[in-house]
Amino acid sequence: MDQYIITIGRQFGSGGRAVGELLAQKLGISFYDKELISLAAKESGMSPEVFEHVDEKAANSLLYSLSMGMYNFGSGFSMMGDLPVNDKLYLLQHQIIREIAEKESCVIVGRCADYILRENPNCVNVFIYADIEYRKQEAIKKHGIDAARAEHIINKTDKSRANYYSFYSGQKWGMAENYDLCINSAKLSEEKIVDLIVEYIRMK
Amino acid sequence: MDQYIITIGRQFGSGGRAVGELLAQKLGISFYDKELISLAAKESGMSPEVFEHVDEKAANSLLYSLSMGMYNFGSGFSMMGDLPVNDKLYLLQHQIIREIAEKESCVIVGRCADYILRENPNCVNVFIYADIEYRKQEAIKKHGIDAARAEHIINKTDKSRANYYSFYSGQKWGMAENYDLCINSAKLSEEKIVDLIVEYIRMK
Repeated sequence: MDQYIITIGRQFGSGGRAVGELLAQKLGISFYDKELISLAAKESGMSPEVFEHVDEKAANSLLYSLSMGMYNFGSGFSMMGDLPVNDKLYLLQHQIIREIAEKESCVIVGRCADYILRENPNCVNVFIYADIEYRKQEAIKKHGIDAARAEHIINKTDKSRANYYSFYSGQKWGMAENYDLCINSAKLSEEKIVDLIVEYIRMK
Repeated sequence: MDQYIITIGRQFGSGGRAVGELLAQKLGISFYDKELISLAAKESGMSPEVFEHVDEKAANSLLYSLSMGMYNFGSGFSMMGDLPVNDKLYLLQHQIIREIAEKESCVIVGRCADYILRENPNCVNVFIYADIEYRKQEAIKKHGIDAARAEHIINKTDKSRANYYSFYSGQKWGMAENYDLCINSAKLSEEKIVDLIVEYIRMK
């Protein structure tokens, strides 16, 4: 593939973000994770801090608003005034992800990018996950927190990501069938996972 | 790894069985799919045809029977007389899968082998799947049936496999987290999937 986009869905504590960063470095392509918030903020004229609080969290009004025909995607986002900030961020990220995917090879972490780009034939969708014990140990090491706190954050964050994914995509987060390749990071080092994904892309 | 077992879970029509066969050939190790029925039949003294009808189909009584303490796994299967044939087959395959995994490298398709061998460090659990359209086309080509019949068989078989897996393992079939590696066969040829799994094993 000449131009390709690798999307990475990941459970909290699985190291999916690190895999994405390393992969982008190795392939010499752009990496987008929190960067998508800055871009969305720039586009909207709002503060990145406002968006950061609602990143990858679902609101409840988008489908209702869409069903009421309140929003016109074709002509941009001028009618987004009354939308909850979660939905604004989703719609802006949606637009930005599609624009990025048009113009460059890149790695995009989270934010339903696999779903947003589902009709793009140059897209490779990867999911990184691990058992809870492994992820707890990783979170303890990385964030210097105790086991109970680590478990709480993992469950809370993953519940939030699952809701976000299911709300905007209508699919169940973590089902293998949403992805091209799913890799358990408790069983293979980050470097080797990157090598395996590179090998996968080479094969395509 | 010196000795290793590759288990393959697969959606109907995904080509998972063919991947498993090719993989076993390439690695020069044994392959078990329907072969497990013959072994179970031999072990039980019953006819393979009897078992064939209930293969990978869940019964409803095993957990009840276990909770009543009716069965003694340690001393073999002499007390299986009253069990439904589904449960007899599961228990025999359970024992056979564990015995095989002790003595040789091999590929095992389906039958909750990933769950049965969950504490075996030499086990690599793979799931092969694809979108319904791809699987329908494969089923039409392979079995010479029409689209409606293909869809019916796919849905019925996968529902049965999902029930079987969930009944005996307590886990949800098709969730990435049950496996080490999940590969979408609509996106990569069987030969390349085999190469990717071989590369994965080489990396371990």
